[in-house]
Amino acid sequence: MTGRRLWVPARLRPGDRVAVVAPSGPVDPVRLARGRQVLTEIGLDVVVMPRVLNRRGHLAGSDAGRAADLQEAWCDPDVRAVVCARGGYGATRLLDLLDWPAMGAARPKILLGSSDVTALHQAFAVRLGVASCFGPMPACETLADAEGPEPASLAHLCSSLFAMDMPAPVAGGQVIVRGHAEGPLTGGNLSLLAALCGTPYAMRAQGRIVLLEDVGEDPYRVDRMLTQLLQAGCLNGALGVALGSWVGCGDPMGVLVERLAPLGVPMIAGLPIGHGSPQFTAWLGADAVIDTESCSLTCLFRDPATAL
Amino acid sequence: MTGRRLWVPARLRPGDRVAVVAPSGPVDPVRLARGRQVLTEIGLDVVVMPRVLNRRGHLAGSDAGRAADLQEAWCDPDVRAVVCARGGYGATRLLDLLDWPAMGAARPKILLGSSDVTALHQAFAVRLGVASCFGPMPACETLADAEGPEPASLAHLCSSLFAMDMPAPVAGGQVIVRGHAEGPLTGGNLSLLAALCGTPYAMRAQGRIVLLEDVGEDPYRVDRMLTQLLQAGCLNGALGVALGSWVGCGDPMGVLVERLAPLGVPMIAGLPIGHGSPQFTAWLGADAVIDTESCSLTCLFRDPATAL
Repeated sequence: MTGRRLWVPARLRPGDRVAVVAPSGPVDPVRLARGRQVLTEIGLDVVVMPRVLNRRGHLAGSDAGRAADLQEAWCDPDVRAVVCARGGYGATRLLDLLDWPAMGAARPKILLGSSDVTALHQAFAVRLGVASCFGPMPACETLADAEGPEPASLAHLCSSLFAMDMPAPVAGGQVIVRGHAEGPLTGGNLSLLAALCGTPYAMRAQGRIVLLEDVGEDPYRVDRMLTQLLQAGCLNGALGVALGSWVGCGDPMGVLVERLAPLGVPMIAGLPIGHGSPQFTAWLGADAVIDTESCSLTCLFRDPATAL
Repeated sequence: MTGRRLWVPARLRPGDRVAVVAPSGPVDPVRLARGRQVLTEIGLDVVVMPRVLNRRGHLAGSDAGRAADLQEAWCDPDVRAVVCARGGYGATRLLDLLDWPAMGAARPKILLGSSDVTALHQAFAVRLGVASCFGPMPACETLADAEGPEPASLAHLCSSLFAMDMPAPVAGGQVIVRGHAEGPLTGGNLSLLAALCGTPYAMRAQGRIVLLEDVGEDPYRVDRMLTQLLQAGCLNGALGVALGSWVGCGDPMGVLVERLAPLGVPMIAGLPIGHGSPQFTAWLGADAVIDTESCSLTCLFRDPATAL
């Protein structure tokens, strides 16, 4: 059984307006300026929402302010994509504060972000039924490095975002379980997926391919989080597993294989998705293919804009 | 509404047999020998289960072996208490491997442990309906230090374990929300309670007092875990909150107060329960009282053995 395919919003055209928000941790203004410039140079009309540089401890300002920026950007009919400046922590705090009916009444658009933004991807999938873009963010190193953006990551992001292009398959480094899987992609950052267990925003892998990555988590923590996803039923019925980067996680492959290979579905590892460089982009909620002959993950989305 | 009171097993008498198990991380043999000696000196007949010194990466041997030791100890009619050697990580991996009907058929007895053992306390409460003892463990520093056990911790453990005694109230350091709460105690280590969200073993605070402590978690992680418990409904209907130690967690009081004070129930902090020294004992599942006049948590359990 294949899981429900989410609504894939229209991809971008040159000159489209995108709005930068900060749903999670505090944003460095220098990095943000660099990343904004990168987005401008690829042809976008970049608006930075008013509270993006706010700070409150480990958060980019108050919950109410972060939620307001996100909601206003999403509901603005002139905005074609909402771009999260960075991750960190704080997105889960917004989930019960957003006015979901109001956001559901707005035209679906692109949400771009990764890491902590996994919480928003899940919530947007559950509450709004929209596919969204898991990729590099403008106030993070991959796009905002002083030496310039990492070229392969930027190129893959552009081909994922713009309507006139299609993203190339992302090649991994290791086949764990051979086979072919095709279905909507779900998942993202493991810590966030674990932190959503038991909430209304929990991942359900049934009929889907699961993407997993993390940063700075010891193998025993990776093990505990996988155990939670398994015991919570979040991985029941998964069609395949695509493992991204595990930066600063020691050597987690032992526990990843031990816990996930028994699912008995195609599984590849070493995809440059998540943290680290290069950092490729994946569309969550759109169709994807795991092919173990080429050890790759390919986004197959049918784009309503290009289908015209 | 007061939550269901669990069955409080008969407390110990001098000469009773207790069995040491290792459900979580690898056990240091030198510490175990010291802790075993301490338990012997307080009058117990200490048996060490056969697989306690096994090792497998970050675990004390295979899941099957750890589960077998735990189950055999629990089902042995001559054993009056099952004592976990230490925490670490690994208890959640056992929860789906234990033969709960077989364990439910055995006479309820004391389970002693803390930290990672929170997973067992919760599972024993949910599956077996028994109260259990959250306190120091024999292969950990509080009891197994080379200089000898920490006296106040050992005295409080003895008064909690032995039938002829009653544990003194545990005094905290700070009143967050004034008031009086009385009801069964639940909770334990926050990381484990978060890791149980969405599983059949999740905490339900309804009608109960919630004990929370943790070790080595940054405030943003404490925040994320509290947010998960709140969003998963695990804290709905809590009667009170008792905060233990937060060793190596930076300064988490800001997020603890911000997230938990809105529950509007009596709340005290600074209880020496969890990690660090001294480390007092609490009975999970038995009645407890939060009194903010004395800033204390008192275990009130009605002991079937002493009631005779």
